[in-house]
Parts: sequence; structure tokens; C-alpha cells
Amino acid sequence: MTVSNDIDLALLVADTEAEILRVLGREDAATAGVYEMIRYHLGLDHEDGPRGKRMRPLLGLLAYASIAGEHARALPGAAAVELGHNFSLVHDDIEDGDSERRHRPTLWAKHGVPQAINTGDLVFSLSRIALHRLSELGFSDAKVLRLMRLYDETCVRLCEGQYLDIAFSVSADPMPVELYFDMIGRKTAALISASIEAGALLATDDDDLIAAYRRFGWALGIAFQLNDDLLGIWGQEASTGKVPTDLARHKKTLPVLYALEHATGAARGRLAVLYAQPDPADDELLEMAALIDRAGGQAFTRAEARRYRDDALAELDAMRIVEPAARERLRTIILGVITA
Amino acid sequence: MTVSNDIDLALLVADTEAEILRVLGREDAATAGVYEMIRYHLGLDHEDGPRGKRMRPLLGLLAYASIAGEHARALPGAAAVELGHNFSLVHDDIEDGDSERRHRPTLWAKHGVPQAINTGDLVFSLSRIALHRLSELGFSDAKVLRLMRLYDETCVRLCEGQYLDIAFSVSADPMPVELYFDMIGRKTAALISASIEAGALLATDDDDLIAAYRRFGWALGIAFQLNDDLLGIWGQEASTGKVPTDLARHKKTLPVLYALEHATGAARGRLAVLYAQPDPADDELLEMAALIDRAGGQAFTRAEARRYRDDALAELDAMRIVEPAARERLRTIILGVITA
Repeated sequence: MTVSNDIDLALLVADTEAEILRVLGREDAATAGVYEMIRYHLGLDHEDGPRGKRMRPLLGLLAYASIAGEHARALPGAAAVELGHNFSLVHDDIEDGDSERRHRPTLWAKHGVPQAINTGDLVFSLSRIALHRLSELGFSDAKVLRLMRLYDETCVRLCEGQYLDIAFSVSADPMPVELYFDMIGRKTAALISASIEAGALLATDDDDLIAAYRRFGWALGIAFQLNDDLLGIWGQEASTGKVPTDLARHKKTLPVLYALEHATGAARGRLAVLYAQPDPADDELLEMAALIDRAGGQAFTRAEARRYRDDALAELDAMRIVEPAARERLRTIILGVITA
Repeated sequence: MTVSNDIDLALLVADTEAEILRVLGREDAATAGVYEMIRYHLGLDHEDGPRGKRMRPLLGLLAYASIAGEHARALPGAAAVELGHNFSLVHDDIEDGDSERRHRPTLWAKHGVPQAINTGDLVFSLSRIALHRLSELGFSDAKVLRLMRLYDETCVRLCEGQYLDIAFSVSADPMPVELYFDMIGRKTAALISASIEAGALLATDDDDLIAAYRRFGWALGIAFQLNDDLLGIWGQEASTGKVPTDLARHKKTLPVLYALEHATGAARGRLAVLYAQPDPADDELLEMAALIDRAGGQAFTRAEARRYRDDALAELDAMRIVEPAARERLRTIILGVITA
């Protein structure tokens, strides 16, 4: 399948989901239950199941298509990163105690913690099974192995980032801003960057070009997380009168950490008091958001998000991309996702 | 290093642990804490830390040495299977609610469930990193990739087996005996078999020989589990007057399942009543063990354990093993481990 002037993102998503279902198609009578749990978590249990945006596989497929001119041969990689991302979501939901995801009970809330831990492990294992189909599609052993190494190193970084996140979520001390960048680099940017690098890696042997895609993905990944941090406090929910979700959940994202480092005098003390509230009321949450804003937390985060987004756009512009349609799609996604 | 007349098992264990520590040697200041947790779980946090028997890597190294005449080049595989086994232990301890392992608090009991889940995920990821060193040792890409596929398929089976185990542990219905064999095949025999097959795979291109090692490992794996089932009820602890551990923990191993299927009349009812006790007293546990014995649970399990052990020995005898010392070691381990 070649990419002409336009790329149909819905088609890329549909193809990725078909590839994932192919990987899941190994159940037997005894194990049907656990594969059904996986489809449920992925929103693939029925046609209109609630699903994620499939951003990582989309970025990977677009990166591949931007060099190779088509996306089909990269689908096993797309399935692998989406399964890898979802294994971490299944475990994150337990670790964070989140009982709902996309308006449905999370796996642990529905089937208990033991089954949810194990189902996450199975999704992790299956993400690797997905990659083996690259061999069947004719990629060289050297190429598949290099991709697996990238994937494995990324999974290590993901867990290291999650360790830092959990460690500071139970600590009285807030994470220093510098360490926060380290943490989201491992936890978020690594997988987004790897998805994009994997797409390039499958399409070319040119190491300089692969490195450019990696840098592009890294900047995009950081920008994506910081944008998410902004939305969690000043996003649509907050602006329509609802409470700042991340603050209600005691999440210490960049705006909060920056404010805790930079607020002075009475504002500093008040913020600490509000943060220590186990169950803050709506007006307290709005007061927190205002205090964080006044300490510069919003402005700093927005400036950083834009800086990383612009880095990503500059990398994109500098790349020797074959397919203009794929480049435009990447640019559109960046500007659509990073609203900061 | 060549293997002469005798093989020093302690040396194989020490080499495996050194290889594991090499894999763990990637921590930095920010992540030191989680790598320390891993060393703690593995008993590698200090020189006399409590450790497992390292049975899986030992079997793999002996299988490799029995063909190749030395063990050093197979160490990355040995490290991978031991890390893979331990990832599952870290998660099993949470899933089973076990707060002690080898007389120390389990990871979740010490650091909380969230960190323990994530640490298990990191151990899983690192088990794959271990395998990549095979490339540095000169194994061909095709060989490394084939080994990875074996490993990934094994991890899938492990999780499928664990799914069945958890599903029936919370169910009122006991697992049918036939399904129990399916479950332990996936959960226990698959990894033991894969460890041994991996050793052969690294040493030879002869597919018939590799298949023979796989069959050998499979039979050994089933025999090992059934032997464990016997020890959990009639092992040393029980014979020295202590309670049958597995029964106290409500574990439905083969002797129990067989008895639940085959006990008749009053014994059947009494067994069901005793099993339904949330916290059975010592005399009730001993009564249960006696009822299970009388229903044939012990005899059946022992006969099956011996049958699989003898299958394993027959496979071993039929194999074209180059190193007599390695064969003898394998035979000694089998007879030492399977005491049924």
C-alpha cells in the first residue's frame, strides 16, 4: 500500500488494531478469559469499545511511511508499542489505585489485583510476540534484533521512570524540577521517541537519519507530557468550572513542582497546607491552581512545552523526508496534540 | 573454560550470579533504589543473602555444557531465565499475598505493592537485556532471535498458566485434574523446559537434538512440580510434626484435586467442609492430609511424578551427549530434586 497525497489516520489505526487482534488470536478454551480481559482493556471487546488515541503506533507508522512511502510492513512494530504502552497502563492503574479508565472499571477493579497484574504481564509478553512477525515480513535478523534491543532498553527506562514517580508520590519531599525532567524522559519521552525511532529504523539503514527521528521523538515526548501537565490543571475540565483533576488526585506535575520551588512567603506556606489536605474541597483546588499560577508554574511549564515542541518541529523540518504527506501529518499531529 | 571430568555446580551458580550483577550494573544515582530492591529480592544484596537454588540456570548451563563442553558462553541465557523466573516470583508474592520469602519480607511487604509491581516489570525487562549479550559473545543474529522467540513464547505460556491458577484459586469449583496438568505445563514446565532447550539451542544447530532436550525438560518440569506438590503436604515440615503448608495456605495442588474428584461418601463431604474453613486448626489440617491420602491423592501424585521423572531419565539416556560429566550432573540433579 503506497501513501499518496493524503494519509488516512483512521486506516492506520484500524490496521494497527487488526494487527493487535492477530497477536491476541492465540487463545484456546482454557485461556479465553484472560484474552478477553486484554481486549476489554484495549477497548477491542466490541466495535465501539472506548479506546486510546493510539498515538504511539500512529507516530511510528507515520515515521516509517515518511521514509518508506507505505505503512503496512511496520504494523508489527506499531502493535508492539501499543501493547507495550498498554501493559504499563494496566499496571499503572493498580499502582495509582485508579478504578476507572475511559468511563469503565479498570482491569483490577473488575477482576481483582492478582489477575490484573498477571494480565499486564501477558500484554507485556505479547508485545514482544508482535515484533517477531517482522521476520515473517522479510526484515533481516539484524534489523529485527536491533529493534528488539531498542524496545528492551525502552522498557527498562519506562520502569526506571515509574520507580521515580512512585518513590516521590509517597515521599513528603517534592521531586526537584530537574529530576522531574529526568523522570518524564524515562517514563514518557522514551516510549514516544522509541516508537518514532523504530519507524525510521525499519525504513532505513541511515544511522544519521535514524538519530534525527529519535531526537524529534524525544522532544515531542517531553512536549507531550508538559502539555498534559497543563491540561491536568488548566485544561477544558477546569475552564468549564470543573476542578483541576491532577490537583484533586495529588499529582505533582511540573507546574506544582515549579511553584513549590519558587513560591515565596505566605503563598508558599499556604500551598504546602493545601497540598497536605487529604481530600481538598473544590474551592481549595481552585485556590491551589491560582497559587501555582501566581508562582509562575503555568508560565514556566507552557514555555518549556513550547520550547520542546519547537525543537521537535525544527528536527522535522531538517529531516530528509521522502513523503510530503507523511511530513504534513506529523506536523499536524504535533500542533494538534501540543496545544500549550 | 572447558569442563573436565567433573563440573563444579557452585562455580556455575557463582558465574550466573556474576552475569546477573553485570546486567544490573546500569543503575545511576536516580535509580539506585530500584536496583537495590532487585538485588534484595535475588539475595544478592550481601554475600550471604538468602537465595534460590538457581535450578533453571543450572539446568540450562548443564544442557549447554553437555553438548558444547563448556558453560561460559551460555551465561547470558542463564541470567535471563533466572531473572525471568524471579520477575514472576515478585509478582506471584503480591498475587498470593505472601509477605515472606526465604525468611525475609517480600518486596511488596517491604516497599508496598506499587513499587513491587514495577520492580517485577523492571526485572522482566532486564531479563531480555541479558539475552542481548549473546550477540557480543559471537552468537549469530539468527540464533539469538530464535532464542528470544523461545523465551517470549515461554513468558506468554507462564502468564497463561498463572491466569488459570488465579482463576481457580478464587473459584468455588476445584480445577479438574486434567486442567491442572495443563496449568502446571504452562506455569512450571514451560520455563524449566525452555531453560534446557535454550542451552541446547545455543550449543547446536541439530533440531532433533534440540527437540530431545525440550522433551527432557518438559518431563522434568512436570515431575518437579508434582514432587513439590507432595512436599507441600507430606514433606519434611509435615513429617516433623508441623502442619502441611500447602493445605494451611488453601493451595489446591494435585493431591487435593485428585482427592476432591475421587473421595466418596462421608470423606468427600468432610473434605469439602474442612477446605471451606477460612482458618483451619492444626488437627484439621492433619485430618485433611489423611483424607487426601486415603482418597488416593498421594499415591496418584507420586506415581505421576515418578512416571514423568522416568520419562526425563529415558530422554536423557537417549540423547547424544558429548560430555559424560554433564550427563551425570543432570542425572544427579534429577534424582536429587525428584524425591517422590
